[in-house]
Amino acid sequence: MQVYADNAATTKMSQTAINAMLPYMERIYGNPSSLHSVGQEAAEALQSARETIAKCLNASPNEITFTSGGSEADNQALLSAAWLGLRKGKKHIISTAFEHHAILHTLKRLEKEGFEVQLLDVGPLGNITAQQVADAIREDTCLVTTMYANNEIGSILPIAEIGAVCKEKGVLFHTDAVQAAGHLPIDVKAQNIDMLSLSAHKFHGPKGVGVLYARRGVPLTSLIEGGAQERGKRAGTENIPGIMGMAAALQDACEHMEANAVHVSHLRDRLIEGLSQIPHSALNGDPVNRLPGNVSFCFEGIEGESLLLLLDSKGICASSGSACTSGSLDPSHVLLAIGRPHEVAHGSLRLSLSEWNTDEEIDHILAEVPWVVEYLRNMSPMWKDLISGRKPFIL
Amino acid sequence: MQVYADNAATTKMSQTAINAMLPYMERIYGNPSSLHSVGQEAAEALQSARETIAKCLNASPNEITFTSGGSEADNQALLSAAWLGLRKGKKHIISTAFEHHAILHTLKRLEKEGFEVQLLDVGPLGNITAQQVADAIREDTCLVTTMYANNEIGSILPIAEIGAVCKEKGVLFHTDAVQAAGHLPIDVKAQNIDMLSLSAHKFHGPKGVGVLYARRGVPLTSLIEGGAQERGKRAGTENIPGIMGMAAALQDACEHMEANAVHVSHLRDRLIEGLSQIPHSALNGDPVNRLPGNVSFCFEGIEGESLLLLLDSKGICASSGSACTSGSLDPSHVLLAIGRPHEVAHGSLRLSLSEWNTDEEIDHILAEVPWVVEYLRNMSPMWKDLISGRKPFIL
Repeated sequence: MQVYADNAATTKMSQTAINAMLPYMERIYGNPSSLHSVGQEAAEALQSARETIAKCLNASPNEITFTSGGSEADNQALLSAAWLGLRKGKKHIISTAFEHHAILHTLKRLEKEGFEVQLLDVGPLGNITAQQVADAIREDTCLVTTMYANNEIGSILPIAEIGAVCKEKGVLFHTDAVQAAGHLPIDVKAQNIDMLSLSAHKFHGPKGVGVLYARRGVPLTSLIEGGAQERGKRAGTENIPGIMGMAAALQDACEHMEANAVHVSHLRDRLIEGLSQIPHSALNGDPVNRLPGNVSFCFEGIEGESLLLLLDSKGICASSGSACTSGSLDPSHVLLAIGRPHEVAHGSLRLSLSEWNTDEEIDHILAEVPWVVEYLRNMSPMWKDLISGRKPFIL
Repeated sequence: MQVYADNAATTKMSQTAINAMLPYMERIYGNPSSLHSVGQEAAEALQSARETIAKCLNASPNEITFTSGGSEADNQALLSAAWLGLRKGKKHIISTAFEHHAILHTLKRLEKEGFEVQLLDVGPLGNITAQQVADAIREDTCLVTTMYANNEIGSILPIAEIGAVCKEKGVLFHTDAVQAAGHLPIDVKAQNIDMLSLSAHKFHGPKGVGVLYARRGVPLTSLIEGGAQERGKRAGTENIPGIMGMAAALQDACEHMEANAVHVSHLRDRLIEGLSQIPHSALNGDPVNRLPGNVSFCFEGIEGESLLLLLDSKGICASSGSACTSGSLDPSHVLLAIGRPHEVAHGSLRLSLSEWNTDEEIDHILAEVPWVVEYLRNMSPMWKDLISGRKPFIL
């Protein structure tokens, strides 16, 4: 049995998304900037995708900019807002300590350019409050950027409340919704979101395509300059097949969001319940207020990488944290941000589910993880030191 | 009969490219950064594509960075080289007046940052000489960037000679090979190329994916920051299906390059011969030293846009110049650069062929264009003024 439980890293494309792409790979191949009929057919498709996606976000079509993915959208959002702030003499940016690296590394770049970046402390359950944001906003704050849901531990941030605070104080609010889009409701108006990033391959769409939503009146700076595509805000011939696949996948995800969430959170809760029985284990993130598909644990005394490799040999595809940082020997900045000690953060396991996972797959995971953890502990000098010496961090 | 003669704007995907993508859309969907077997299968595919593309360019796999297309590659190349130069106190950049806007607009950005950009004059046939580059290089020159072949008028630049001059003087040399890749031989070593951009959809590959080649020892700056993909030089989950399609399409194009060029240049020369018979017409670009598939004419006294729309109604898909600037009322900067007067530059037609075009299609184009040009002239006040008054520019 093979169980794919790494849907936060990437998802398998849906047949709906593939079917939406194929005509644009096989037949409708024009460049939407071309005036002739072959080009105009592509331009019409592009517009229809823009409308579909706008509708899913309660935005207007001309507020949607297509990008090559979530990282590009995050980079462009932050640089646009920061450089806009700079022109008004505002150089203070608020974010959180457990953002994705597409945010954190862009903020580092902005720090080098002279911006002051304030990262809000994250609570032990992976929470941030709107009050923290309100307290941090200053006269010279040009941007608040907080994720909608965390990619490693699944906790959901109160973005509507954060958005309301930002709106009241006249500060731009961006949210990295890469993990949320297609899984949690998005309404940019009701949630007071000025800018939002999403990535298609996180909801059964294609890789290599994403969206940057920017509210009308929020000027974007081009990251990629050249032709006049995307109203001059993103040069390069549009990836029409990818965009069509993304639009179909997002529409599909939004239409089935509630039913999917019921099924997926049932599976999630079975996993959380079962894995909590493992001694010296701890759930990461909020037990209730979390992504329907996210399960994240720390098992004290083991190395996450060994755990993954053994689980893989049992047909279980999982992750220790973010795929983007796998191969790194540093413990996850997210787990450190919620207060896990280094020793504990190393023993992390993320299982991220989709609506295609089944109860039988959960049975398989629950049958394998406990003995693999025990097996690794038995051969771990770290564990032997631990049980013979200091008190475990996780009781 | 529908004739697609706008292959410089974009090409129809080959079945080879589609077949190379499908397994990665349907079955092999992992994130190459994931440690488990599903991810590692994707990582192996990524590496094989990198090797295939490197081989086509005579480069090493780790000199290949995957991007979202030619524009992104151009932007990253220029910014990387310029910022590297800046650290050495070098702020002079040499380019040409008829580059693609992905180059020219990035150079404008660099001018705003304090760089001095020198655009070499283009000869009447769309030529640049290595001697011009040699004469322009100064002590503080950090970058020479010239295209391999022009996207509007098809003229081919002596990039091996330009590369040799740059190598001798110790200046980085980048070439925008978006129009050349898959159509003209590329050997980055023999041609002394330090950096090169290409885009898959110009050689029957997918849209939304490209390559930036950077010679070992040429450090790239990330345009898109985040995860550690592409050796830390380009964040974002890799577009595996697109990359696989691109590798297959480039390999295919390189294997059949000579045979394709023989066929396509035969069609091209038939078009050039036939369209030259139209009174007051002029071929743009070099009659001999040009892309196999490029035909570019100016017809005095007409508007290119009207010509395109009428040809479209006859099933002929063509362009006035670059697709990226269609919709703009300004005449082409390329045609102005080779000395065409504004009045003449407005009446341009680009027919760009691929190996899938046929002699019958050329017959169709040659049957339609002459009378459409005559028809438009007969209803054009511009033309009536012209023939009753001043001497035409094109005799």
